[in-house]
Amino acid sequence: MSIDRQSTDDNVYADAVEIAGGRLIRTQGVTSPAGFRAAGIPAGIKASGNPDLALVFNEGPELTAAGVFTTNKIKAAPVLWSQQVLTSGALRAVILNSGGANACTGPGGFQDTHATAEKVAESLSNWGTETGAGEVAVCSTGLIGDRLPMDKVLAGVAEIVHELAGGISGGTDAAYAIMTTDTVPKQAALHHADKWNVGGMAKGAGMLAPALATMLCVVTTDAVATAEQLDRALRAATRLTFDRLDVDGSTSTNDTVLLLASGASGITPTQDQLDAAVLAVCDDLAAQMAADAEGVTKRVTVTVRGAATEQDALVGARTVARDNLVKTALFGSDPNWGRVLAAIGIAPIALDPERISVTFNGSPVCIDGVGAPGAREVDLSGPDIALDIDLGVGDVEVTIRTTDLSHGYVEENSAYSS
Amino acid sequence: MSIDRQSTDDNVYADAVEIAGGRLIRTQGVTSPAGFRAAGIPAGIKASGNPDLALVFNEGPELTAAGVFTTNKIKAAPVLWSQQVLTSGALRAVILNSGGANACTGPGGFQDTHATAEKVAESLSNWGTETGAGEVAVCSTGLIGDRLPMDKVLAGVAEIVHELAGGISGGTDAAYAIMTTDTVPKQAALHHADKWNVGGMAKGAGMLAPALATMLCVVTTDAVATAEQLDRALRAATRLTFDRLDVDGSTSTNDTVLLLASGASGITPTQDQLDAAVLAVCDDLAAQMAADAEGVTKRVTVTVRGAATEQDALVGARTVARDNLVKTALFGSDPNWGRVLAAIGIAPIALDPERISVTFNGSPVCIDGVGAPGAREVDLSGPDIALDIDLGVGDVEVTIRTTDLSHGYVEENSAYSS
Repeated sequence: MSIDRQSTDDNVYADAVEIAGGRLIRTQGVTSPAGFRAAGIPAGIKASGNPDLALVFNEGPELTAAGVFTTNKIKAAPVLWSQQVLTSGALRAVILNSGGANACTGPGGFQDTHATAEKVAESLSNWGTETGAGEVAVCSTGLIGDRLPMDKVLAGVAEIVHELAGGISGGTDAAYAIMTTDTVPKQAALHHADKWNVGGMAKGAGMLAPALATMLCVVTTDAVATAEQLDRALRAATRLTFDRLDVDGSTSTNDTVLLLASGASGITPTQDQLDAAVLAVCDDLAAQMAADAEGVTKRVTVTVRGAATEQDALVGARTVARDNLVKTALFGSDPNWGRVLAAIGIAPIALDPERISVTFNGSPVCIDGVGAPGAREVDLSGPDIALDIDLGVGDVEVTIRTTDLSHGYVEENSAYSS
Repeated sequence: MSIDRQSTDDNVYADAVEIAGGRLIRTQGVTSPAGFRAAGIPAGIKASGNPDLALVFNEGPELTAAGVFTTNKIKAAPVLWSQQVLTSGALRAVILNSGGANACTGPGGFQDTHATAEKVAESLSNWGTETGAGEVAVCSTGLIGDRLPMDKVLAGVAEIVHELAGGISGGTDAAYAIMTTDTVPKQAALHHADKWNVGGMAKGAGMLAPALATMLCVVTTDAVATAEQLDRALRAATRLTFDRLDVDGSTSTNDTVLLLASGASGITPTQDQLDAAVLAVCDDLAAQMAADAEGVTKRVTVTVRGAATEQDALVGARTVARDNLVKTALFGSDPNWGRVLAAIGIAPIALDPERISVTFNGSPVCIDGVGAPGAREVDLSGPDIALDIDLGVGDVEVTIRTTDLSHGYVEENSAYSS
């Protein structure tokens, strides 16, 4: 299966952004770096018949990899499996399914994950690339609590190996197949001026909170890098991107972010270059997830500046970003800054009520803890809202991406499983 | 102004509950104990013309009092004032206004609170009861960030002193005057078999979270008790009632709970008797607040049992009670227990994923971390949902009252200030 997309260089680079020593574009994903193939197919896991199985395959020559996983104590079977597999620092492939989280499924669910990895290894070996199950990460997303339809999953695995493709189409098919309530696939690729590349795909639209967002994300690179270098780059990037995306304060049982390197470019970037490129791709994917969050009508950034510590700034911004009264006010385009003050006031951080100043989209609404003239008239009717809180007690600044709380969010989440 | 309510003993006691050594009823409030008068009037603070000013007056012979206030670091002017006044352990009166929180209003807002207390003291003195401003607590509720219309507040204070009444009507008028988005007044009175009484009124429908809920609450008693005894009884009661009411995780800048004793019954209960009676009244008021919360369509209790410590049980229950994905599922009558597992899994508490069991209204939906047969068919269509999580790692149990997250909540809170 291949989704019909235009792929001439002209439109591919039309929206390119210069960043991190390269060009970032959103029409390419995990197969943008050399040495990677991917595919996405409908395997019948979803009742809708939509694509629900994706495979990302590393042709090498190198197979180094790193991963970051949910901090939820309730971890889905594929998370437990992939954490174990990643201890080797190497991955040949990642199999991902939507249509079921395989979480809270007990020992049987773990056996399902193991069987899936075994089937991927067997199929890749039959296809010509000798692979062990211990080289295959598994990711699942969907409803928590149900076993996967393993007959469909295993048949799909046998089929998907034959669909593996490079270029734009393979990665794009995979990005479609991991969608759940996402309305658009999320991809980004960075082409470094030194002739190496980073590509990524992600899904996630709800249960989005640190650490991490409810999300699956696979990032690939054709740079030459050790597993330790990848781990450092990935942790640094997730800390500043996915960990700062907070739609609803809920953390999933399945969150997984993987970084695989093929070394196919033959180029060995410095750690700083690698960090910057992975950060740029993850940041763009995080922005795409926020923009496509369940029920979103406003893209919101909450910045806390003038904090005593990074932890204070982060906790303060997160507390405001999660506050339902702030979020509903933003949905109503209501510059109700008092709710921002009430929210920041319950954050366990250092603050002085008489030093707090707040702006909405740059317009002062509260100065030194007291309302500013014209505060009630600030226009928040547009789709982007920047909420800026200056604590005035230090010089540290952190920004969290979030959304409003809308009727759409309630609608979508009150009728998810049934 | 007096609201027309029937008050024959027959219907007053129709819904009485036997508890804490007495009878608890909901048609009487702060003027149920001997020695208290109250009033509620429209002073023009609210644009709607609805009642917005209330006064509770202690005739004595004793004037002991205690108070518990918001833990928000951003405290409204009346909270700062009343905390200061309460250090004496005595109160002659409480003046309460709706229609404006007088929070984030700077030094001018604090002067407004002070002037209000002075005006109450002057009016009561003129009326025949010598009173100082330092014996008058002030409570405000409404929109954060605007100054109060002091001409109306002060004129209202001068008028309300002449409306003070005992019996049922005075307390009921006061309970109406403190309402904001409440749809019904909240009152409860406990008539102890030993001929002493406790009465209370409360308001609060949103920004409800520990500690405390967004609420004003005045509790009165004609028992003889020292300020220390009142303080102990009030703290014990709020810890188990208002602190365990969590509608939206948002804590107000204005939360105030006051307990005043007149000693007019001449009876000195034991500390345990006083504790039990104050607890019973506060618990009933908390239940009334949960039932009238903004947008509520489900009355929900979240119980965490089998916890290692009370703190673990409390944090676990609160985390689930605040989880928007759990709350929207309950709004949709959807027994999506996986969201409960995902929520408890992010609570910073001791748990073992393989020992967690969950019931919805008594029906098992998850046993030892795995879905129970028939879990997806549990009927949650009724207005009451009891969500019970057994961690299986200890023997401590805590229950939090909360609500679902509905379209009504979003509607009401996206159009509050504007």
